[in-house]
Amino acid sequence: MSTHEGMTQEIRTVFWQDGAVVMIDQKALPLAERYVACSDYREVIAAINDLTVRGAPAIGVAAAMGIALGALRIPDSPPENFRRAFDDICTRFAATRPTARNLFWAIERMKRRCEEAYGVDREGLPEKGKGGPLQAIRETLIAEAIRIGEEDIEINRRLGRNGRDLIPDGARILTHCNAGALATAGYGTALGVLRAAREEGKKIHVYVDETRPVLQGARLTVWELMREDIPCTLIADNMAGCLMQKGGVDLVIVGADRIAANGDTANKIGTFGLAVLARAHGIPFYVAAPLSTIDPELADGGMIPIEERNPDEVIRCGGVRTAPNGVAVWNPAFDVTPNGLIAAIVTEAGVIRTPCADVIQQFCPPQPRRQDR
Amino acid sequence: MSTHEGMTQEIRTVFWQDGAVVMIDQKALPLAERYVACSDYREVIAAINDLTVRGAPAIGVAAAMGIALGALRIPDSPPENFRRAFDDICTRFAATRPTARNLFWAIERMKRRCEEAYGVDREGLPEKGKGGPLQAIRETLIAEAIRIGEEDIEINRRLGRNGRDLIPDGARILTHCNAGALATAGYGTALGVLRAAREEGKKIHVYVDETRPVLQGARLTVWELMREDIPCTLIADNMAGCLMQKGGVDLVIVGADRIAANGDTANKIGTFGLAVLARAHGIPFYVAAPLSTIDPELADGGMIPIEERNPDEVIRCGGVRTAPNGVAVWNPAFDVTPNGLIAAIVTEAGVIRTPCADVIQQFCPPQPRRQDR
Repeated sequence: MSTHEGMTQEIRTVFWQDGAVVMIDQKALPLAERYVACSDYREVIAAINDLTVRGAPAIGVAAAMGIALGALRIPDSPPENFRRAFDDICTRFAATRPTARNLFWAIERMKRRCEEAYGVDREGLPEKGKGGPLQAIRETLIAEAIRIGEEDIEINRRLGRNGRDLIPDGARILTHCNAGALATAGYGTALGVLRAAREEGKKIHVYVDETRPVLQGARLTVWELMREDIPCTLIADNMAGCLMQKGGVDLVIVGADRIAANGDTANKIGTFGLAVLARAHGIPFYVAAPLSTIDPELADGGMIPIEERNPDEVIRCGGVRTAPNGVAVWNPAFDVTPNGLIAAIVTEAGVIRTPCADVIQQFCPPQPRRQDR
Repeated sequence: MSTHEGMTQEIRTVFWQDGAVVMIDQKALPLAERYVACSDYREVIAAINDLTVRGAPAIGVAAAMGIALGALRIPDSPPENFRRAFDDICTRFAATRPTARNLFWAIERMKRRCEEAYGVDREGLPEKGKGGPLQAIRETLIAEAIRIGEEDIEINRRLGRNGRDLIPDGARILTHCNAGALATAGYGTALGVLRAAREEGKKIHVYVDETRPVLQGARLTVWELMREDIPCTLIADNMAGCLMQKGGVDLVIVGADRIAANGDTANKIGTFGLAVLARAHGIPFYVAAPLSTIDPELADGGMIPIEERNPDEVIRCGGVRTAPNGVAVWNPAFDVTPNGLIAAIVTEAGVIRTPCADVIQQFCPPQPRRQDR
């Protein structure tokens, strides 16, 4: 994994370049803006696990590109081993982070693409391409991964246009964690809606929960907003209730890591508490996510697997240990907000008002799949 | 200000020793257990401001002792200047932290003691004592400050006994910030109730909010609980809602910095949000505080002055900067929980069920005072 400093004008979170998966190092932000280039798929797995890249859509894009990278290194012979090695790589990516639906969505899409490249007979050998019998498949997989990234940006722009009418001119908006360009291939989901509202000329002010334990709000969302001169104020997570009590919040908008068929939404830990507080204050609570975050096979949020992460994230603050040695810690990375607390889910296909099982089934019919849970 | 390492068996947060105000350094906990000895009242003011000592009752004790320390250094002559110098010292202490009622309560008590020592004629000179005309007053003030500290521990023990019946055997309790021995002269308010329940032989498990931005929960409450082998689990503040949703919390108990006549309670930022979440889950929410925290002159919590602290507390996490340079921050140190969300207020005089204006008036009739707001 090599790193190099520098920053393009538009935030590009994860992209394919010169046979490597390049990503902005989200662990280093905002103190340093640097990119890491992964030339081995295991580096991409490590980057997903250690949050160098995070955010459900961005994880999906990184996994797709990582799988393509892995396919590049599968030996040409014997060619019948390719599928087994490819499936093994996919399984390794599936074992990284259990909650983000987009991860599994991207893995399934790459697997389907691989199957298609093999031809209708799934056990058959591929047609020969230039550079050996498997080179055509490898190129197909790389192209598919790049397409997933490009589509993600376009999806977010459509999602933003769909959601911008929910943002009144002059609105004071509360968001949690980072559902911005950094959580996607670019533009963002919740922050994409806010960007789209700004592009219409609306004035907004964004309150940003710092989002312990990993501080994605303080480190990433504030960085994104300040970079585009969007007025924002950082608060500790536990200040959100007081801010609402004082009438300082007109709406809440967050991203999502997985949405069940009934609209129940898993998102960064703390989201559920915000939704309860918003309801208590009569403040609309919105979720913004691409359809690839929706898991139509799960009837409700109780079935969403919730990742628990290393206690060190809580015991340490800004990298410095702050709690006594040996303390027990509970560190769920996500919680589930019931659909009844969500006013609407903004997607690239339109704004879904909850409860919404039927609409979600219409947008996202359940599909057979193998790579999940 | 001198420091020395070491730890007595029982936590003594602030005490008078050899003509100095000694306090455990709460900024250094839990990584280091060390005491600071203040021999100048201005060091005590600095220690209150920078949170070396914190917690409303402990601030009250520290201020009383700091005022006594200041009185020691007022020159003997001309004796008619003593009162003016004494009042000036009191004014400086009153300017430290605006929300903690116990601070003003302690200042008023020291002023009354000073007036009494001067005799009925407030403008008159004191009776002569050994060591000069003012020595008797100085000794009276020192004795009064020490008494305030001793009484605080005894009050907490009574408060604990009054509240322990609220804690069922086997209860899983959520607390916020530190309302323990470290927030008082010793034993604690909310944690005093839990200690009293333990002394009865009840089993409990305490979930501790880390309590950003200053992390009093992670640093201080966990340290206190682990020191006494009280089972506890540390969580980030934004995990409390999810824990309640999963049925993991039987009750919430917190301390208070100021309680209005109707029971509205100012406490560490985040308390209000917890109370809303507790209500949404049908979980009882208790406040534990001595009567000296009650401000019967304030009809409701809207009149409680709320301190806003340095943005650096939020921009930094564990002392390390985590947010981009120049970010705007909102950092209120406290919020106000309306009485309707509080099941009961535990005091040394008994358990007050809310709404409670009449009971509070009975316990704490308004008194004339000058040193506040």
